[in-house]
Amino acid sequence: MNNRSPVRFSQALSLVLLFVVVGTQDSVEGRLIPAISNKPHPNDAAAYARWLVSQNSWGVLSTISSGLGGAPFGNVVSFSDGLPNEGSGVPYFYLTTLDPTASNALKDKRSSLAISEYPLGTCGKRDPEDPVCAKITLTGKLVLVDVNSKAAEFARNALFAKHPEMKGWPKDHNFQTFKLEIDDIFLINWFGGPKPLTVDQYLHAKA
Amino acid sequence: MNNRSPVRFSQALSLVLLFVVVGTQDSVEGRLIPAISNKPHPNDAAAYARWLVSQNSWGVLSTISSGLGGAPFGNVVSFSDGLPNEGSGVPYFYLTTLDPTASNALKDKRSSLAISEYPLGTCGKRDPEDPVCAKITLTGKLVLVDVNSKAAEFARNALFAKHPEMKGWPKDHNFQTFKLEIDDIFLINWFGGPKPLTVDQYLHAKA
Repeated sequence: MNNRSPVRFSQALSLVLLFVVVGTQDSVEGRLIPAISNKPHPNDAAAYARWLVSQNSWGVLSTISSGLGGAPFGNVVSFSDGLPNEGSGVPYFYLTTLDPTASNALKDKRSSLAISEYPLGTCGKRDPEDPVCAKITLTGKLVLVDVNSKAAEFARNALFAKHPEMKGWPKDHNFQTFKLEIDDIFLINWFGGPKPLTVDQYLHAKA
Repeated sequence: MNNRSPVRFSQALSLVLLFVVVGTQDSVEGRLIPAISNKPHPNDAAAYARWLVSQNSWGVLSTISSGLGGAPFGNVVSFSDGLPNEGSGVPYFYLTTLDPTASNALKDKRSSLAISEYPLGTCGKRDPEDPVCAKITLTGKLVLVDVNSKAAEFARNALFAKHPEMKGWPKDHNFQTFKLEIDDIFLINWFGGPKPLTVDQYLHAKA
């Protein structure tokens, strides 16, 4: 599997350093302390992945762009996987087909959502590309949620709780809720390459 | 063009509100004040785009994943477009083929880099998906830079200046410099949909 190639940053010293950094850092920005306080151990891949998805409010959603000759088109989007502290692990989006991402997905569902730990402020002095500063890519199908379904109601509640501004977005833009049906998970949250993690393990982990 | 569809958030009140928010906000995190102080006017699309690329140190680089059936695979990466305050507009990366992004690009060069203004702290209370919180997607070809070229030297200096940690990354991982040859620019930094901006205008703007 292409996304399972190992990336081994094997400096053992770093194991020690991380805990020193995390343990002594008080505050860089508002969200730092709460995010650190419930950060799972890197060895618990499922819990770590769920924490990363639940703590973040935005990421980059990539689709296949028909307008750009099939290029992989990444787009900054907001998302939510549930009410605060009640994440489901499944990311929901509020998108309009005035924007290329939604219209791309209606033609070709293949997509991925990439999220970084870096903006949470819990990476200390680590570089965003340092494997200890976690990142996750959820790959799957970006699908429209039936507007009258229970899932759409869940999605709207999840989105509006984390993104209150969305409630006031223009009605004539026809924003609709989409969800990512996850097929594959690529998580790096430590040295040694991507963590083995199935979708089932992820969905049934405690956030 | 698929990526030129208009997104019109036509609340005139917001024009006023933005300047109130930006004008009165003192500090949320360390990088806020310097980033705001030189933020170009949204009407100057080329300068704004260059500022956004130059201020950010990371983004999501999307490639076509051969391992995942051709899915658009976004991956969190660090980048640099030049020495601090000397951005070239062209993003350089330090990647290893142990990671899927570099190996994908060697098979299919089509890629895009998505960057958000949100982590700079200059969006005030705006949501990351609010069109006034800027985002840019540079689409093009992700190409390996010849290790012995002047371009590679420029790339390494640009990368190591903004990401000093990279200098110490393991030699046996065979990190190499890649650059994105930009073919198309998708910039949203205000209401009214993507800003018209050619690659030539972008590359010749003052950062």
